[in-house]
Amino acid sequence: MSRLPIFLYFLACTIVLGQKPKVDQNRLEARILELAKFGLQENGETERVAFSDADIAAQQWMIQNLKDLGLKVHIDFAGNIIGTRKGKNPALKPISFGSHIDRVPNGGNYDGCVGSMASLEVLEVLNENNIKTHHPLEIIIFSNEEGGVMGSRAIAGHLGKDALKVVNSTGYTMGEGIMRLGGDTTRIAEVARKKGAIAAFLELHIEQGGTLEKENLDIGIVEGIVGLKWWDVEFTGLANHAGTTPMNARQDALLAAAKFIVAVNEITTSFEGSQVGTVGKIRAEPGAPNVIPGRVITSLEIRDLSSDVIQKVYAAIETKGEEIARASKMQIEFRALDTTAEPAIMTTAIQDAIATAAEKLKLTTKRMPSGAGHDAQDMALISPTGMIFVPSKGGISHSPKEFTSASDMANGANVLLHTILALDKKNSTTRERH
Amino acid sequence: MSRLPIFLYFLACTIVLGQKPKVDQNRLEARILELAKFGLQENGETERVAFSDADIAAQQWMIQNLKDLGLKVHIDFAGNIIGTRKGKNPALKPISFGSHIDRVPNGGNYDGCVGSMASLEVLEVLNENNIKTHHPLEIIIFSNEEGGVMGSRAIAGHLGKDALKVVNSTGYTMGEGIMRLGGDTTRIAEVARKKGAIAAFLELHIEQGGTLEKENLDIGIVEGIVGLKWWDVEFTGLANHAGTTPMNARQDALLAAAKFIVAVNEITTSFEGSQVGTVGKIRAEPGAPNVIPGRVITSLEIRDLSSDVIQKVYAAIETKGEEIARASKMQIEFRALDTTAEPAIMTTAIQDAIATAAEKLKLTTKRMPSGAGHDAQDMALISPTGMIFVPSKGGISHSPKEFTSASDMANGANVLLHTILALDKKNSTTRERH
Repeated sequence: MSRLPIFLYFLACTIVLGQKPKVDQNRLEARILELAKFGLQENGETERVAFSDADIAAQQWMIQNLKDLGLKVHIDFAGNIIGTRKGKNPALKPISFGSHIDRVPNGGNYDGCVGSMASLEVLEVLNENNIKTHHPLEIIIFSNEEGGVMGSRAIAGHLGKDALKVVNSTGYTMGEGIMRLGGDTTRIAEVARKKGAIAAFLELHIEQGGTLEKENLDIGIVEGIVGLKWWDVEFTGLANHAGTTPMNARQDALLAAAKFIVAVNEITTSFEGSQVGTVGKIRAEPGAPNVIPGRVITSLEIRDLSSDVIQKVYAAIETKGEEIARASKMQIEFRALDTTAEPAIMTTAIQDAIATAAEKLKLTTKRMPSGAGHDAQDMALISPTGMIFVPSKGGISHSPKEFTSASDMANGANVLLHTILALDKKNSTTRERH
Repeated sequence: MSRLPIFLYFLACTIVLGQKPKVDQNRLEARILELAKFGLQENGETERVAFSDADIAAQQWMIQNLKDLGLKVHIDFAGNIIGTRKGKNPALKPISFGSHIDRVPNGGNYDGCVGSMASLEVLEVLNENNIKTHHPLEIIIFSNEEGGVMGSRAIAGHLGKDALKVVNSTGYTMGEGIMRLGGDTTRIAEVARKKGAIAAFLELHIEQGGTLEKENLDIGIVEGIVGLKWWDVEFTGLANHAGTTPMNARQDALLAAAKFIVAVNEITTSFEGSQVGTVGKIRAEPGAPNVIPGRVITSLEIRDLSSDVIQKVYAAIETKGEEIARASKMQIEFRALDTTAEPAIMTTAIQDAIATAAEKLKLTTKRMPSGAGHDAQDMALISPTGMIFVPSKGGISHSPKEFTSASDMANGANVLLHTILALDKKNSTTRERH
């Protein structure tokens, strides 16, 4: 063989690696729409909270898709879907990627679904182009991301026993939910991976904020993910008849909770910085128009890039809550939930690989923090990790109005694909060509 | 027959009518405890909201009890249980009495149950003493009292079609609930009674306030029942991700609702008088800790003895609610529910009959208003009506802590019995003796 054909071969390879293979935008969008059918309701919106029948049906559909692509698939003890595709060098650690297909109540079709369907699309393109990677590839569809990043916490080895008692809107505890998904609560510890057991973890996700759209950019390269803490806050007053109990003789737990909700907002915004504090959930008991509520339970969530700030805001909220309760002669109790996520820094080398892949694809980028928590946050504890963001229309997320265009999804999937190939090439210990 | 035996006979009758017959306190209490078993939960408390399986089971048990006492029983088209006992003079209109056995969520064992079980006890005592009244007697166990005095409104002929759409905590609409109870929504109009078709209506009930206990009195003679109005209040903001949406970019419907709840309390107490305003029910959607609520629906209830005061307080609340919504760039909507109850005055002659009966039984009394709504409120629209109150321990009601002692219940039942006998005697057109 003369040297010219060899040169041409390498040139071709460079072009291919630089811009091709490419994902099929239509197929990716079709899968997003197909997935949205699991949990579709009469009003045209989809409900697929973790552990629901719809979640389980989507899980089975996902497994079938992965099997059709030739992967070896199983559900681990924490209910995660794990699909593996052999690499050329079985001695290498896997390159892992994926997201989640569960949704918040009354959520949208894009959230974790884009990263999950893009991961399928990446595998599809690799098959079509007969590309065999050096590393084994592993797709992970994490269980119950929305209710406390359950699946990724289990893989990171810190899903505590208390977390298993947390109930989501289906009425099931995480423990019960794991059993429904085909996991096994008695063997969860076995799914934990050792630090360094994964070569790299990548997650593509919608931004869920409005920055990329506002600045007209294609791709966000995540630098770090904010930490968050959750509490249940319980107010105990005295349930009584709303007609016979004078206004000045009431111990109205909902009135105290209302004052508290206003205070959470005031205190969170009273500090400098970008911390957020949210009450998203409330239950008043007994919950009838003609009964003064005797008990109210609300959620409380605080997020920030600094754990210290979270603690500082919480301390002020706790003090004010106790003041409100005292003034109304009621009880207040703060219960910290075992769903803490520490702020996580994304691996610089992977940020760079994402940037290079995007550049080759002629896509515009921005390095940015993630205000939302993600499975990547836990994966960062045990693996070099990176996240790719695509724009969210109007910055809207966790809402049926959530939307990301097909071309934006395809851009993200292409970046995911080429980042995987670049990491595979870079980290391969052999010198084989694709 | 000489004149002496005749004299002695009349003397005996006077004694009997003055103090005897008497109800069986133990039997009455046993029935209260037996009824409390319908809907008994693992935590020892009872749930029996109208239309629930427990409500239907209690209905069937009640019907069997009435049949065992020899009454002719049927469920009317509005789901009321109607039991009739023949009188000596079939031309006379019935004397009716009763109450309800449905409960508010997380309510107590006494509320409508005392009047219902006391009505059974009255019939039992009449049977035991072979007393046949001139008038036919009619016991009515009203359907769904707690969710909008449904059964009595139907009998009074003003249960509107909109009311049938109201959903209670079982998830059933009133319309669906009527069908579950064995009624027929297409024929509800047929249960309406003409004004004057009932000779008198009596309801025994727990006070649900603390006045009788505080003043150490046995019996409350109700002079009038406050009016009430219900609204649903809906706040529409924008559901969004709690991690990615900055505090100043939120349209948090729960924050607006919280400000509204505080305002309802402030406005209601800002007017002179004894009006009460209550938010007892709240639903935040989607209702997850990590999602800013996009929609919140609360109840609003205002009560007063004057319809004008209700309207005045509501107008101020409505104005303030719109102000809160405007300031937060949100929508607010007030929907008046078809559950209005106008203030009702109890018939003076019946108040006097109750007072006389109590006096003969050597029970202490007080004339007082009712802050709670009752089926008697609607019955007053079509019939001379009276209400008998017995003490509520600590003034607590609509709570599992609700309690009325067996002796207080027996006092009330004895007053009910002797008021019925007095009205029967007074109104009889024949001169037959008991």
